[in-house]
This record gives sequence, structure tokens and C-alpha cells, in this order.
Amino acid sequence: MKILILGGDGFCGWPASLHLSDIGHDVMIVDNLSRRRIDVELGVESLTPIATMEERLQAWSETGGRPIEFVNLDVAQDYDGLLELLQTQRPDAIVHFAEQRAAPYSMKSPRNKRYTVDNNTNATHNVLCALVDSGVDAHLVHLGTMGVYGYGTAGMKIPEGYLDVQVTTETGDQVDQKILYPTNPGSIYHMTKVLDQTLFAYYAKNDKLRITDLHQGIIWGTHTDQTLRDERLINRFDYDGDYGTVLNRFLMQAAVGYPMTVHGTGGQTRAFIHIRDMVRCIQIALENPPANGDKVKIFNQMTETHRVRDLAELIAKISDATVAYVPNPRQEAAENELHVTNDTFLDLGLNPTTLSEGLLIEVEDVARKYAERADLDKIPATSLWTAQQQPGVPEQLPVH
Amino acid sequence: MKILILGGDGFCGWPASLHLSDIGHDVMIVDNLSRRRIDVELGVESLTPIATMEERLQAWSETGGRPIEFVNLDVAQDYDGLLELLQTQRPDAIVHFAEQRAAPYSMKSPRNKRYTVDNNTNATHNVLCALVDSGVDAHLVHLGTMGVYGYGTAGMKIPEGYLDVQVTTETGDQVDQKILYPTNPGSIYHMTKVLDQTLFAYYAKNDKLRITDLHQGIIWGTHTDQTLRDERLINRFDYDGDYGTVLNRFLMQAAVGYPMTVHGTGGQTRAFIHIRDMVRCIQIALENPPANGDKVKIFNQMTETHRVRDLAELIAKISDATVAYVPNPRQEAAENELHVTNDTFLDLGLNPTTLSEGLLIEVEDVARKYAERADLDKIPATSLWTAQQQPGVPEQLPVH
Repeated sequence: MKILILGGDGFCGWPASLHLSDIGHDVMIVDNLSRRRIDVELGVESLTPIATMEERLQAWSETGGRPIEFVNLDVAQDYDGLLELLQTQRPDAIVHFAEQRAAPYSMKSPRNKRYTVDNNTNATHNVLCALVDSGVDAHLVHLGTMGVYGYGTAGMKIPEGYLDVQVTTETGDQVDQKILYPTNPGSIYHMTKVLDQTLFAYYAKNDKLRITDLHQGIIWGTHTDQTLRDERLINRFDYDGDYGTVLNRFLMQAAVGYPMTVHGTGGQTRAFIHIRDMVRCIQIALENPPANGDKVKIFNQMTETHRVRDLAELIAKISDATVAYVPNPRQEAAENELHVTNDTFLDLGLNPTTLSEGLLIEVEDVARKYAERADLDKIPATSLWTAQQQPGVPEQLPVH
Repeated sequence: MKILILGGDGFCGWPASLHLSDIGHDVMIVDNLSRRRIDVELGVESLTPIATMEERLQAWSETGGRPIEFVNLDVAQDYDGLLELLQTQRPDAIVHFAEQRAAPYSMKSPRNKRYTVDNNTNATHNVLCALVDSGVDAHLVHLGTMGVYGYGTAGMKIPEGYLDVQVTTETGDQVDQKILYPTNPGSIYHMTKVLDQTLFAYYAKNDKLRITDLHQGIIWGTHTDQTLRDERLINRFDYDGDYGTVLNRFLMQAAVGYPMTVHGTGGQTRAFIHIRDMVRCIQIALENPPANGDKVKIFNQMTETHRVRDLAELIAKISDATVAYVPNPRQEAAENELHVTNDTFLDLGLNPTTLSEGLLIEVEDVARKYAERADLDKIPATSLWTAQQQPGVPEQLPVH
């Protein structure tokens, strides 16, 4: 099918684009390259040396891939351009990664909060509005986050989107209702994915759009089968305090001899998924669209849950890394349980890459290999959730 | 106390500003006059002849009112201006009416959908962000809508914001949880108030802002004690298909001999509140703020529920009006029940103005008095919820 990938230059969008191209789809990437501009703004670079979009696409063709087109367009700002693209391309599906995706970046300053809300809300709403406006009946697959739920679930296993509850009517009867699972986002970024969820529910109801929302855990890993084919195809790997996700940050810290900085007690339980599984999930979601008039399909896109301190200890075991307990720059519960249902993807054939098999490869093939590119000063998480929090900086920094 | 009224030039904002000034508060109106610009865009005018903001404020001072200041500022666009205003004024409270508030206008075109989402989300988020940024601990009172819930409530009485549900844990235990009452908005406009609710919940949790969200029914009536003091203080009265709310539209149709256009079967049940009660509710909400760290206080701000066709029949009885059943331009259930809890305001002393006592006054004192200003062509509701709906135009139009 013909698929537009919005945000196809990013950490998830790029490997997803290659994977979907590789299995025979006509892929067009739409991106405003904002993630690279934010690198410049923050004074950091991907640990891996990523090529320009032009080099990436040329390398993909040269290695035998189906040609991928690229359109430089800001989905949040250029509605007319987006509409014209839908009208001329008439895609069968759209995968929407085109949002600011880092919680710490979204909390960094009032400007960052406002950018994240404005950019993410308008990007998503423009896509929905343009689908109705153009009359294109494309299946929209959106990358959401498990973080819409927060991390306190009263011992419940988080269902896939909808929750059965009992309510009491005026006459005292108990009535069963199916509702969207209540949200409790932990950052401005996570909150924007709740806003998205509201937009999706409305457009699925009023305009019968076909929408799948993937509530994803924290991604780890870097390479997929496709990004390994040529170094110009390499995926980005973020290790800085704003964009580096916890597991990748630990891997890099382990590789460069920087203590693994655990925020607070490290008792936070998080959901994880390997990047190879993410691209497979996107494929599976595309192959299983809802019907027009259905509710939004919501899948939990994760394969394992772990406490942060357990991850640090696991990595310490397979490498020589040390652990530093540092202040938590986030406002969150020190310890939380997390139980998640992920039957849909497993039933549809996902065969997860587990941490136990993949971690060592990442340390050696990615983090150690590119370690000399790291700017260690950029590692600690310094974006604070409120003025009462402290940055996640270890007391003793390694000499470099 | 010192109170900023965002959107203080509008249908609710203006009488609320005068009422709060009249009971002794220092009121500053912040408005970008967007509602007047939309009049120009739609080619309509308020049925009542509203004065300019400068004339309004002069008349208020001349009739003995405490002087009210006015700042022309776009809350959604001019964050720096808003922040500076908070820093210099340091208000005790902010009442936030500064949103596009008509469901039909929000559905009129892709441009209108996008404007409503962009404007309302950024206005609300800018206010929240500026409160944190400035460190001003003002109580934020927001005008929301009963319409966040949609109109199908499975026989339940809609509680004031939060719903007690039972969920089943992994171990099979039943656990009680308090969640935000699930939403089901019926238009883009109503949906933006769900987005607002998500923003409020987040900022109350993360930043301990003190927020009250008023889920208001449909306003009817025009005058308050204060707006009656001088004709230059008169409030706006909208009768057009986009901004005219159902009851005021019926009153005007009755006054000018235009059949009262009932959409569909008229079986929709709606919640109503008189504009005099609205200003009292704002006062009561301001006098009863939540504490820092509390959840958002949510009140249902309505006093009566009625089926639309019953209202039309009621008005037909007290005037010579006829009823025309026309297609429903909205996508909604033909008939719905609506049961609402409104104990908070009643317990805090609200003494409602009932339809039975107020309707005839409105027909005579407002609708008939200004009938010659009406443009009958602008009455029918023509903004369609989807391309499948039909405009609410009667088959036989009155000759004029």
C-alpha cells in the first residue's frame, strides 16, 4: 500500500519507514527535520553518526531498497501543504510520528512547554482535519505512549485502551459501561498524547475515521535489519539528558565509564520495547485496521516491564559500569507498580526481542563503538518538573 | 480582590465583569475583541446594539461603577504580553472566558475547526503556563460546558466532575477509584473543553495550581442588574445560526414571526441556566477556591433541563409563534435523557431564575424591542457536522 510516514526522519519514524518499504509498501516520508534542529538548539548530536535525509534515501536505493520519497513539510504549521499532499497522494495509510517526543524537553522551560502543546496538538488535529477535508479514507496509525496512564494503577492490569466499569443509575441499577481508560500523564509531553487521544475519539465518532493509537513503552536499541545494511542508514541514538531514554542512556554511560545515573530510588517501573519490535508492531497495526465507524483501536505496544534500578544492576553485571543514585528531576512517585496487557500484538504474531538477549549487543555494537562521539556534559538530566526538583547530576563526575 | 477577566467583552464575560465590579472587586478586562471580528466575518450583528468597549467602560464609570480597566491582548497568541500582565498585576483570581464558544462555528469549515482547536488550546495553556512562569498564585476559574459529556449518560445523574467506579485488580479484588467523568463531546468546540480539562488536571497535579472548572449549560437571557443601568451597558444577544443558542434563537424567532426551527425531532434534552445565575455562579466559584494541591474543582453550572421541542411549545404558548421541524445539521442522537447533579451551587446559595418566570420578559423586553435589527436570513443553522447532514432551514420562509 501507499503509506505516508509523518516524522519519518526521527528515531522511530526512520526505521519504521525502512521496514515498511522493505516489506513492499510505497513509502513517502514527510518531515520538517525538527528533531535535527533541536539537536542544534541543545548543542548535542546523535551518538551514532546519522546521514542527511538525502544521503539516507540514496543509500536505501543503492542497497536495493524501493525508492522512498521525501517531502519537507511542517504538519503542524502548513495545513494547506498537508491537504494538497493527501489530495495528490491519496495514501492508503498514514503513520503519525510527527510530534515532539521527549518528556524532559517538554518540561525544560515555558517556551518548551508551549511548543510541545502547540506543535503536537496542531500536528495531530491538522492530520485529522485534512483527512476529512480531502475525503481520503486512509487508516491513521499514531504513536502514543503508555505514559498517558501515569504509573499508579491501583494494582490493575492496564487494558488496551478501554475499561469496563459499573456505574449506578438514578434508579439504583448497576450498568456496565466501556470507557477510555482514565489518564494521569506525568509530563507536558505525555499530556499531549492524552489530548491526541481525545481528538482521535472525536474524529472516529463524528467522521468515522479509521484510527489506531499505539500506547508505546520506552524504546531501547538502535539497529533494525534495514538500518544495518549501510552505515549511511544508521538510526539515531540519543543519550543526552533530554532525549536519551533511560535504557539507552544507561548503555551509553556503561560504555564510556560514566556512572549510570538512577533518579531517586530507581523504584519507578517502566514498560519497554525493542526498536525491532516497534517496527513490527507498526506493520501489524497497519495490517489490522479498524472499520469505518469503529472506536479507535488502542494497543499497548510494549513487551516487558522493569524497575529502573533493576535495569541499572543488570547492565552493571554485563559491563563494568557503576551506579550513582542522583536526585530525581521529575515529580513522580518514588516507587510504582506497573501491570500491562499486551495480548493484541502477541496474538497477532509479535515475537519479542528480550532485554536479556539484546542488551550486551547494544553496549558493544553501538555505545562502545561510537563512545568517542559522546559529550559527557550532556548526559545528566537537568530539565526540572517544578522549581522544587533537583537536576540528576552525580556528585562525582568522571574526569574527561 | 483583583480579578482579571479573560474574554471580558463576550456574552458571558461582559455581564460577569460588571457583576464582579459591582460587588466590590477590582476588575481588569483582557480581550482581543475576537467576538466582534467574527460578527464582521459572518456578516451579522448582535440583536441588541452593543457599544464599543471604550463606551461600555465609560458608561460603567458614569453610572457609579468602580472603574474597570481594559487591555487588548490575544491570550492565545501573545504569551509574553500575558506573562507581563500577570507579573505586573498579580491578580488574586483569573476568570477565563477567552475561547471560541460556538459549536456550529467550530464545525463550519476546516479553517474554523483548526482555529477553534488552536485558539482554545493555546489560550488555556498559555494561562496555565504563565501562572507557573510568573509564580502568581491566582485562583483560575474557567467556563467549561456540560457538553464535554455528550448527551448519552446511560440513565446516570452526571456528577460534578468525578465518578466513583469499581475496577478489578489482577488478584481479583474490587477497588474503588475516583476518575474524571468520561467525556463524549459532540462538536469540535465541545471537544476543546475536554482538552482544557486535561490541561487543568495536569497543572493542578504538577504545579499545584488552584483551578475551578464550571461545566455550564446553555445560557439564556440577556440582561443582568448591571447591564440594565444604561443602554450603553447592554449585553450582546446572538440569534444567528452559528452563535445563537437554542433558547435565545427561539425567543427571537417568536418575536419576529419566524417559525421556531426545531432540529430533528427536538427530542434532545439540554441543560439551561439564566445569565443572571451565571454571574452569581462565577461569584460563588471565586469565593470558594480549592486549596493548592487539590484536584480541579468541577461544578455543574445549570439549573434546569428541558427537551428542545418542549421549549418550543412553551414559547408558542406565551407568544403567537409557530414551530417548524427542520433537518438537524448536527450529528447526534435524535432523543436523549439528561440528568445532572447541581448541588454545589444550590448549597452555596444560588437561587435560580426559572424559565417560567423569565421567558416572557425576554420575548418582550429584548427580542421584540430590537426585532427590527434582525437579519432573518442569518437565523437558520447551516454549519453541518458532516457532509451527510442538512441545514436547519424551514421549507417556508417568512416574507420580509
